[in-house]
Amino acid sequence: MNDGPGSSRGAGRAEPEQPEGQRPLDVHPAWLPPEAFRAIGSRRTRVLGDGPLVETVLSEVREACARYGGVARHGGVMGHGATGDEPDDLILVLSTVDAVRDFVPAGQPLGEEGFTLAARSGVTVVVADRPAGLLYGLFELVRLGEAAFRPERAPESHRPAMRRRMVDQWDNVDVHPVMGQVERGYAGGSLFWRDGKPRRDPDRLRAYGRLLAGCGVNAVSVNNVNVHATEAHLLTDRLAEVAEIADVLRPYHIRVHLSVSFASPITLGGLPTADPLDERVRAWWAGTTRQVYATIPDFGGYVVKADSEGQPGPFAYGRNHADGANLLAAALAPYGGVVHWRAFVYNHRQDWRDRSTDRARAAYDHFAPLDGQFHDNAILQVKYGPMDFQAREPVSPVIAAMPATRLAVEVQVTQEYTGQQRHVCYLGPQWSEVLGFRPWGPDGPAVRDVAASPGGAASPGRAHDGGGLVAVSNAGDDPFWTGHPLAQANLYAAGRLAWAPDLDPTAILDEWIELTFTPSSTGDPDLLRRSLHEVMDGSWRTYERYTAPLGVGFMVRPGHHYGPDVDGYEYTPWGTYHFADRDGIGVDRTVATGTGFAGQYPPPWSQLYESRQGCPDELLLFFHHVPYGHVLHSGSTVIQHIYDTHFAGVEEVRRARQVWERLAGAGLVDPAVDTRVRERLDEQLRCAEEWCDQLNAYFLRKSGVPDAHGRPIY
Amino acid sequence: MNDGPGSSRGAGRAEPEQPEGQRPLDVHPAWLPPEAFRAIGSRRTRVLGDGPLVETVLSEVREACARYGGVARHGGVMGHGATGDEPDDLILVLSTVDAVRDFVPAGQPLGEEGFTLAARSGVTVVVADRPAGLLYGLFELVRLGEAAFRPERAPESHRPAMRRRMVDQWDNVDVHPVMGQVERGYAGGSLFWRDGKPRRDPDRLRAYGRLLAGCGVNAVSVNNVNVHATEAHLLTDRLAEVAEIADVLRPYHIRVHLSVSFASPITLGGLPTADPLDERVRAWWAGTTRQVYATIPDFGGYVVKADSEGQPGPFAYGRNHADGANLLAAALAPYGGVVHWRAFVYNHRQDWRDRSTDRARAAYDHFAPLDGQFHDNAILQVKYGPMDFQAREPVSPVIAAMPATRLAVEVQVTQEYTGQQRHVCYLGPQWSEVLGFRPWGPDGPAVRDVAASPGGAASPGRAHDGGGLVAVSNAGDDPFWTGHPLAQANLYAAGRLAWAPDLDPTAILDEWIELTFTPSSTGDPDLLRRSLHEVMDGSWRTYERYTAPLGVGFMVRPGHHYGPDVDGYEYTPWGTYHFADRDGIGVDRTVATGTGFAGQYPPPWSQLYESRQGCPDELLLFFHHVPYGHVLHSGSTVIQHIYDTHFAGVEEVRRARQVWERLAGAGLVDPAVDTRVRERLDEQLRCAEEWCDQLNAYFLRKSGVPDAHGRPIY
Repeated sequence: MNDGPGSSRGAGRAEPEQPEGQRPLDVHPAWLPPEAFRAIGSRRTRVLGDGPLVETVLSEVREACARYGGVARHGGVMGHGATGDEPDDLILVLSTVDAVRDFVPAGQPLGEEGFTLAARSGVTVVVADRPAGLLYGLFELVRLGEAAFRPERAPESHRPAMRRRMVDQWDNVDVHPVMGQVERGYAGGSLFWRDGKPRRDPDRLRAYGRLLAGCGVNAVSVNNVNVHATEAHLLTDRLAEVAEIADVLRPYHIRVHLSVSFASPITLGGLPTADPLDERVRAWWAGTTRQVYATIPDFGGYVVKADSEGQPGPFAYGRNHADGANLLAAALAPYGGVVHWRAFVYNHRQDWRDRSTDRARAAYDHFAPLDGQFHDNAILQVKYGPMDFQAREPVSPVIAAMPATRLAVEVQVTQEYTGQQRHVCYLGPQWSEVLGFRPWGPDGPAVRDVAASPGGAASPGRAHDGGGLVAVSNAGDDPFWTGHPLAQANLYAAGRLAWAPDLDPTAILDEWIELTFTPSSTGDPDLLRRSLHEVMDGSWRTYERYTAPLGVGFMVRPGHHYGPDVDGYEYTPWGTYHFADRDGIGVDRTVATGTGFAGQYPPPWSQLYESRQGCPDELLLFFHHVPYGHVLHSGSTVIQHIYDTHFAGVEEVRRARQVWERLAGAGLVDPAVDTRVRERLDEQLRCAEEWCDQLNAYFLRKSGVPDAHGRPIY
Repeated sequence: MNDGPGSSRGAGRAEPEQPEGQRPLDVHPAWLPPEAFRAIGSRRTRVLGDGPLVETVLSEVREACARYGGVARHGGVMGHGATGDEPDDLILVLSTVDAVRDFVPAGQPLGEEGFTLAARSGVTVVVADRPAGLLYGLFELVRLGEAAFRPERAPESHRPAMRRRMVDQWDNVDVHPVMGQVERGYAGGSLFWRDGKPRRDPDRLRAYGRLLAGCGVNAVSVNNVNVHATEAHLLTDRLAEVAEIADVLRPYHIRVHLSVSFASPITLGGLPTADPLDERVRAWWAGTTRQVYATIPDFGGYVVKADSEGQPGPFAYGRNHADGANLLAAALAPYGGVVHWRAFVYNHRQDWRDRSTDRARAAYDHFAPLDGQFHDNAILQVKYGPMDFQAREPVSPVIAAMPATRLAVEVQVTQEYTGQQRHVCYLGPQWSEVLGFRPWGPDGPAVRDVAASPGGAASPGRAHDGGGLVAVSNAGDDPFWTGHPLAQANLYAAGRLAWAPDLDPTAILDEWIELTFTPSSTGDPDLLRRSLHEVMDGSWRTYERYTAPLGVGFMVRPGHHYGPDVDGYEYTPWGTYHFADRDGIGVDRTVATGTGFAGQYPPPWSQLYESRQGCPDELLLFFHHVPYGHVLHSGSTVIQHIYDTHFAGVEEVRRARQVWERLAGAGLVDPAVDTRVRERLDEQLRCAEEWCDQLNAYFLRKSGVPDAHGRPIY
């Protein structure tokens, strides 16, 4: 019985026994509960094809059938079972089988991972060129549920927009004295390591891989980009631990990648240098990488954070970051591996007195001049914004600045700056906005196009060879995977947007709700869906409202980044300032009078951001220092906007809590989920009130301008 | 050779070999280097008396003589050696020896620890009633050096003003995940424990005890007042570790005390309650304490932090703190032990929005009503100020509020809020000011009188039964004992002020310099002394200048308390606020319009503190919220005072560094000491500049008032 703390099944409801050989996990099933397989499991399905991934598909179908009374068949002739068999309801088949053409006409190649879904005369068919496509087709069927089995369905082909759909784990092997087992992890321990040793819980890890595959992820970087001494050894003498992880994830078409230290030739190889142009260094990386591939033939590649926040890098040798990235790319090239080279390079020892240095400029200044110099298998991994995963930032100008480079867009699913999985903050809308942003104006490509293909060019030859989407995972060994049960939706959405970045985030949420929650058999059938949308749809904007205003960012407690501290980073070396004084607030990043950051964008954005009038309200303080009395496009002054949004944000959280209580009160939520969500909503409300009161007090004390509505400010 | 990193001897200078059997410690000898014993060691000394403490005196003399060629004799007849012996230069003798009267006339009893020093016809004599007096007499001789051997010296009796002169170690047994091995320790690890186990370095521990005895300390509480789970066991199954420490410290007349958890009957005894009025609880403490004394017959007693910052206490049972303290006092009474009960009780979960609650009031509000209810062997241990060891606070009103209670005054030698032993901050002047403060006005007793005797009454019958002075130690296993070599002076001064609280702190510094540093044989003979005074005399006021202004306190980085963060505690639950807005700053603690804290003092202070005019400048913002334009007694406005003192403080640090460099450049300082001090002075200057620039920037941005002298503010 899956009646652990995380079960989303209704209490007291009988469930079929688990099939033998599969230990029930004492964890929440997230978006792949048994119930989601009911439509498949109650039908007759035939799987045609062979190989490990086909085995995975088959075992998923078999398990569903064992639970819901259907029939799973492997092999045979398409549409024809053995004598006496009833006809198939569903066929999952490779396109190499000729009889497929009876159902689905030949079209464009589906590629490694695509599939076509069709139904004819009551038989639903999934066709793929390669086994991975069958796996993704299966999960599409799961999403569709009963709708997959309409008698007739015109053929519809699905291909991922991005070839690499990756999650980065920031897991440490050792418990880091400050950052713990998982850096910026808010969901318990690591799924991979515990206290310096491999965790070796293959059932849990396989379940994680299954969830990732279920939302389209196909690559996992297994360890923290801050590579500490112990973790560095995963590349060499502890490689077997990575291989074990790869073995568990492989059946779900997931390749493992590894974060490595640029200093490895010194720390692991005993060389006197890590200079990327030194022949010994190149030889060391070549030999080491050869060994990695001898151990893990489908190894994905390396992830590198270099010359950033204390990590070693090529600057120490007077080399640039193309030199650094190409060193590793060359080592990986013979095996088809890639290096993800992070663009998060800035001076984290900035003097706060110096207003000419601007951290927002750093990635562009470092990397834009290097466009075209990176090897084909080097991917520049760019955070979506120029700062660091704030609730609101402009899109990074690097994304438009390097048309001849493969760029991956990095988003943070783990909610470091967005409530740390104690606050409901559905980030799908943020990522969707970022992916849909058009750096060259309305007629140019969007960010999603750049992630799919360098420069966003639609040239068919280069399609899908962009860097893709990289999501820093929010999962851990928490029974709900993500601390806050509703934070599961973020991981799901990240995978889905990597597959199909033009999906509507509300529709993704719909998918997630449909999969995750069992519909109620009594009462208002739509209450669950409506309530969850009410709690989650606008939660990112709600979070934005009660935290730092108008794009200025930060104002969080230093170090752990939870809760408000308006001046917490104001006089630090971290380059994250708001410059509030008694007259006004904001960072002048204009070309005319500021740091010039606005000029890093192509037109029209460079002009829009440059002018106070053109700049969107939500980014005003990111680009301009304005008086508190400045009137926004909304008609409000800056100071009144601060008061209003903060009071409004708190009210929205209070309302969300009411909605949830009504929902749970109607018996529509598993009690364990309810308990966890309520506890978090209470904390969110407390914290939102704290943000509201501190921010308002800070700005009232500083500006002296009273709230127009006379609400309490302390 | 004592040529380790801590030697203060000149490089290349020949030293006599260490006597056999004494391992040289690879640590700085602090204020008891061999050189300090040269005057004694080069003479003929007779020690008359027996017992362990006399043995200590004798071994000190013998070691000095072995080094410097003198003669140490034990026993015999006063003034007469064996036939053929040359006459004694120095005699240390108990007053029970009749012949003493030839040298020193009988006077008032000297008590347990007093001694008389005299010289007649070229023979110097130290007389004591009890062996401990001989030990302290010996260290007085060491302080005097050659001056002790003037041919004639009128008898001068020394008795400690306070019976208990205690240091509290905040050492943990386990390394605490946040606070480390020593809470608020800035001098390496603990001298007692390491990583959960006893350190068992008796040589080092004995050296520590010797240093403490050398400045007059006679009690050590061995563990942190925050008693965590492991440390709680020192009371019972790990008592042997405390006994080992007691054995090592006993030869220097130091008793050990133990911090205990009020919840021990539950956590160690398995009782369902720790209610102080429950008979089972009383019996548990009685039995446990009996066992403690069976193991350590001269055990000093317990130290308790109860109902404070998360520690358990009597409030949980609806009992007051006299009930709590008396519970332990009753258990200790049969054995002559005492309980030190800390008065540091306040609400550390205060709502910053609530301006009526005032942490400064808390100790008085909790304890003043309990005056007269504490048992005779219960000592209420009161921090010198009402907040928490800030560089500047008013003296705690509790000290004047409980004339029928034995009060100990607690000072913090470890520099939690005064530069963490990276900054030179000689605190002797602060403590001297506190001890000389007269809470009832100029004609009443001083704080030092209260610490010596309840209510400060000079009634002879009750003399010396006050609570004494308690100093939170700044020592650790650092080779210089205290991190910053010059911070040794603070530990020395704390001991000396406990013995003689009316000593001039500059004179104490003189003693410390004379003992610690070898005078130069070349160049300006007084350069060393003058330079050290220049660096240290005013260093506390310098520190005050560049940190929080005018007594308002805090403005430090939360958690670790190092470096500036003006608003760091402003919106926290810790009750430490400054309420700065665009118009003014400070906490209104008046009776008329504020929290009423000023009314906790007797007149005349209650009236003086109540009025802006009467309040001393240095405490203005502690008692009043004033506009930035408020004119101080100094003639400066508050805002200009902030700018001026901050710039001045930085200049003073810069000057101190120059003075030190000149001194070290003249070859007057051991290179290891020089290296360490320079490194710290560099850091102090950096940090002082940071304080200056942050504070000035904060207040310029908030007030809008420019600096009258147009200096750079960012």
